[in-house]
Amino acid sequence: MSLLVVGSVAYDAIETPFGKTDKIVGGAATYISYAASYFVDDIRLVAVVGDDFDFEVVKDLESRGVRTSGLQVKQGEKSFFWSGRYHNNMNSRDTLITELNVLGSFDPIIPDAYQDTDYVMLGNLQPLVQQQVLNRLNKRPKLVALDTMNFWISSVPEQLKATLAMIDVLMINDEEARQLSGDYSLVKAAKTIQAMGPKYLVIKKGEHGALLFHGENMFFAPALPLAQVFDPTGAGDTFAGGFMGYLAKTNDLSFENMKRAIVYGSAMASYCVERFGTERLTQLDEGVIENRIAAFKSLMHVAL
Amino acid sequence: MSLLVVGSVAYDAIETPFGKTDKIVGGAATYISYAASYFVDDIRLVAVVGDDFDFEVVKDLESRGVRTSGLQVKQGEKSFFWSGRYHNNMNSRDTLITELNVLGSFDPIIPDAYQDTDYVMLGNLQPLVQQQVLNRLNKRPKLVALDTMNFWISSVPEQLKATLAMIDVLMINDEEARQLSGDYSLVKAAKTIQAMGPKYLVIKKGEHGALLFHGENMFFAPALPLAQVFDPTGAGDTFAGGFMGYLAKTNDLSFENMKRAIVYGSAMASYCVERFGTERLTQLDEGVIENRIAAFKSLMHVAL
Repeated sequence: MSLLVVGSVAYDAIETPFGKTDKIVGGAATYISYAASYFVDDIRLVAVVGDDFDFEVVKDLESRGVRTSGLQVKQGEKSFFWSGRYHNNMNSRDTLITELNVLGSFDPIIPDAYQDTDYVMLGNLQPLVQQQVLNRLNKRPKLVALDTMNFWISSVPEQLKATLAMIDVLMINDEEARQLSGDYSLVKAAKTIQAMGPKYLVIKKGEHGALLFHGENMFFAPALPLAQVFDPTGAGDTFAGGFMGYLAKTNDLSFENMKRAIVYGSAMASYCVERFGTERLTQLDEGVIENRIAAFKSLMHVAL
Repeated sequence: MSLLVVGSVAYDAIETPFGKTDKIVGGAATYISYAASYFVDDIRLVAVVGDDFDFEVVKDLESRGVRTSGLQVKQGEKSFFWSGRYHNNMNSRDTLITELNVLGSFDPIIPDAYQDTDYVMLGNLQPLVQQQVLNRLNKRPKLVALDTMNFWISSVPEQLKATLAMIDVLMINDEEARQLSGDYSLVKAAKTIQAMGPKYLVIKKGEHGALLFHGENMFFAPALPLAQVFDPTGAGDTFAGGFMGYLAKTNDLSFENMKRAIVYGSAMASYCVERFGTERLTQLDEGVIENRIAAFKSLMHVAL
């Protein structure tokens, strides 16, 4: 199946206890596309960059099955830029710089050739921009997933809620779930949020794993405990890319298969954090991914 | 199989966002004994209380198969007392009062009738007191598990390490594992700690579940997401009681069975937090426990 990916394609500068990067390629749609490319060979990217962007990366994505006719290039403008510094525990970070640049006026144009897309992953963006993407699709996709963040929950809650009413899967972290629902308990939060529209809710808890909720069904997958987390940047987007890539590949929306997709997302995220930025994500293959799935199986399996 | 339980039997006064108790019965050995009593009918308690203690509780424990000839009663002295207040998120708490009372001079005398015990759970106590228990046993038990806390890790690290060299299973939380090992990564911490003596390490992460390490084997069990956590007091001890009770019942130390014991410990802890203190733990039965095991199975199971 095909997968439409909408989100930022950007530059990041990252500091962790292990080192520091210059500007490297990042952005939600970049991580999502790389992760999903191991599962599907028809990915359709909608994003915007400035003329400062490294087009070798675009070529690399194209070589992995990512169509880029929906990638707008704004001449004379600069790409979105984020810079952050992680604390010693890697669980919290300070944002040092956010330069919206081209993202401030992003108009997500959907090329005609993208119109028949089955699966849609809306990376974190202004909720009305995410909504615009859905309004511009002639046909309702089979499954629409959306990521958002605390900033939109607090600044434009009504716009966000209108968008949530149009989607199938919401993917947010535990603090965002609490903020959006007003409930501290994630079980209560899941009920509240499902009543807003999304039939499926994925709550990402970083190193503490991820929860999937659907009606009365609940599933938990741990994160793989690692000897070293090098750079957590992009782990959530990589998780989303693995999840949606696996669903688009298998084209099976049973709860059993959604659970497997959560583990595939977790496996991809566990690779992402092993190197700076997208580096590790460019080096995988099916065998390497299946090795990690085996590690998850060993970590999770118990005969009860 | 028989289970020797050594630890505090005490009074607690607890404040949570949901309410406040007067002095209620608590203590590590109390929670451990209640939880284990659903699995084994020969529990041997070694502890000390003052003459202020509520002996109805002792009778109740006895009616559940807990032998109490090792429970010392100090006339004219008071039982250990702890008072604490939980914050809104239930994940952190302030200690308001700690009165050691009888626990300050606890000499853990092992009745002769306890000498042939197979399984031993050493609740959190001064490490030399824990060591003394082991030195006073004529025969090496089949399995010795120990809980400790940040206070002993920082104040008497050498005494603690000498004790750790004598045990099989260490059960601590994630922050304690990091403190004891000096490693932030729990995978690295597990290797460091296993080299100190314990062949098995259980890292309790509260609402984020628990990890079991043994050599190269690693297993993770989630905590059950609950609509309401009423009072987390005693959850870690209840976990330990369920874990050791299940092992003593099944008398099977294979890694597969240890994994099941982790889930049974998690199930017992999930009940503990539903009410203040030990209240919920006094009301269970086998069917109720198996219902929760089924909930864990549903939460954790995925065919990969």
